[in-house]
Amino acid sequence: MSKILLIFSGGMDSATLLWKLLTDGHQVDAISFDYGQRHIAELESAKQMITYTEKNKNMKIHHDVIDVKPIFIHINSSSLTNPDIEVPNCYYTEDIAKITVVPNRNQILLSIAVGIAAARKIEKVAYAAHAGDWSIYPDCRTEFMESLKETTRLSTLWHPVEITAPFIHMTKADIVKQGLELGVPYILTRSCYNAGNLSCGTCPTCVERIEAFKLNDTTDPLNYKIH
Amino acid sequence: MSKILLIFSGGMDSATLLWKLLTDGHQVDAISFDYGQRHIAELESAKQMITYTEKNKNMKIHHDVIDVKPIFIHINSSSLTNPDIEVPNCYYTEDIAKITVVPNRNQILLSIAVGIAAARKIEKVAYAAHAGDWSIYPDCRTEFMESLKETTRLSTLWHPVEITAPFIHMTKADIVKQGLELGVPYILTRSCYNAGNLSCGTCPTCVERIEAFKLNDTTDPLNYKIH
Repeated sequence: MSKILLIFSGGMDSATLLWKLLTDGHQVDAISFDYGQRHIAELESAKQMITYTEKNKNMKIHHDVIDVKPIFIHINSSSLTNPDIEVPNCYYTEDIAKITVVPNRNQILLSIAVGIAAARKIEKVAYAAHAGDWSIYPDCRTEFMESLKETTRLSTLWHPVEITAPFIHMTKADIVKQGLELGVPYILTRSCYNAGNLSCGTCPTCVERIEAFKLNDTTDPLNYKIH
Repeated sequence: MSKILLIFSGGMDSATLLWKLLTDGHQVDAISFDYGQRHIAELESAKQMITYTEKNKNMKIHHDVIDVKPIFIHINSSSLTNPDIEVPNCYYTEDIAKITVVPNRNQILLSIAVGIAAARKIEKVAYAAHAGDWSIYPDCRTEFMESLKETTRLSTLWHPVEITAPFIHMTKADIVKQGLELGVPYILTRSCYNAGNLSCGTCPTCVERIEAFKLNDTTDPLNYKIH
């Protein structure tokens, strides 16, 4: 089984991918990014999930939180990073996604992950983009991912790194289904776009998450402010 | 004439591109990156060149230096960023380039520039990669640049940004020729890979630069330690 560098946000998708990769026998290094996101609590969740997983699986997981705020302070046109722009309260639509998009965020974060993987001689970067994402954000769509894979292949000829996005054709409900089978402790994950100790229950990502559990005939174990 | 975001290292290629774009009537924002490069003096050169150019052309140029050290501290397998690995003293060969390559550096820096351009509604990112570069480093080659352009087009559908590399088919000597015609003050530029106030005159980029002036039947105005 190979070593994989996982982009790990602390949300339920990347937590499920972490557990899937470990269950499949891979060795995993995790990286999280502090990009000044309003939902900075997700980084705390990320750390807690790593600690829990290390204990549960009796292994060490190398986890770095990388400060990319000096970059994203210049890319503050999104409600995720600019406190002056409100996070919308409703289900995802293209118009809503346009308010929350951080331009080119995924290409930036994936490029960084690829550079780190190449320096560590790790041959794969895993990323938990899923079908719900790619139908909305341009930089989560399959065309983008395929193109980025090719760009990355050309860029890393001397230290080949492949990008893999195993959930790209799965819905959020499919991910929850897989995670429940794997025993992922979803109570430790955090998806909400808003600040605050409790997830809001009303922003697009909370709404999508709650629904994903309902579609699996169960309830999200998180406590929400409004539910 | 359109607005362009220029990746500006303080070296002679990007200085020439700055003067070319301004002479062609474009409005230019410049960004430089502090990635912990051993040749940090290039950032001082970058600032001096901007100040000189503003005075000479009687205009303001928005210039940001972006701290990306928290990223590149994790990508320290190169002699450009790791003080424990010596910079070679000779002409470029593939083996030499493999020691100085910072894995995926250009994709990372270009992705960041694209994100900033999108947030500022600037439609072009300019980058001074040239024929000398692309024959050696994978992430300077035309195949890589073409693929990155397409990935960027797909990523920025909502805020289209195009990457342009107008020197990609020019040699260093061609760039010097153009810069001399434009009146670029090359004495303010810095190319050396080593630390220190004076450029060394012996590292691959010093050797390449000195030769480019010779090929134009003139001498590099810089003072070198050894020449």
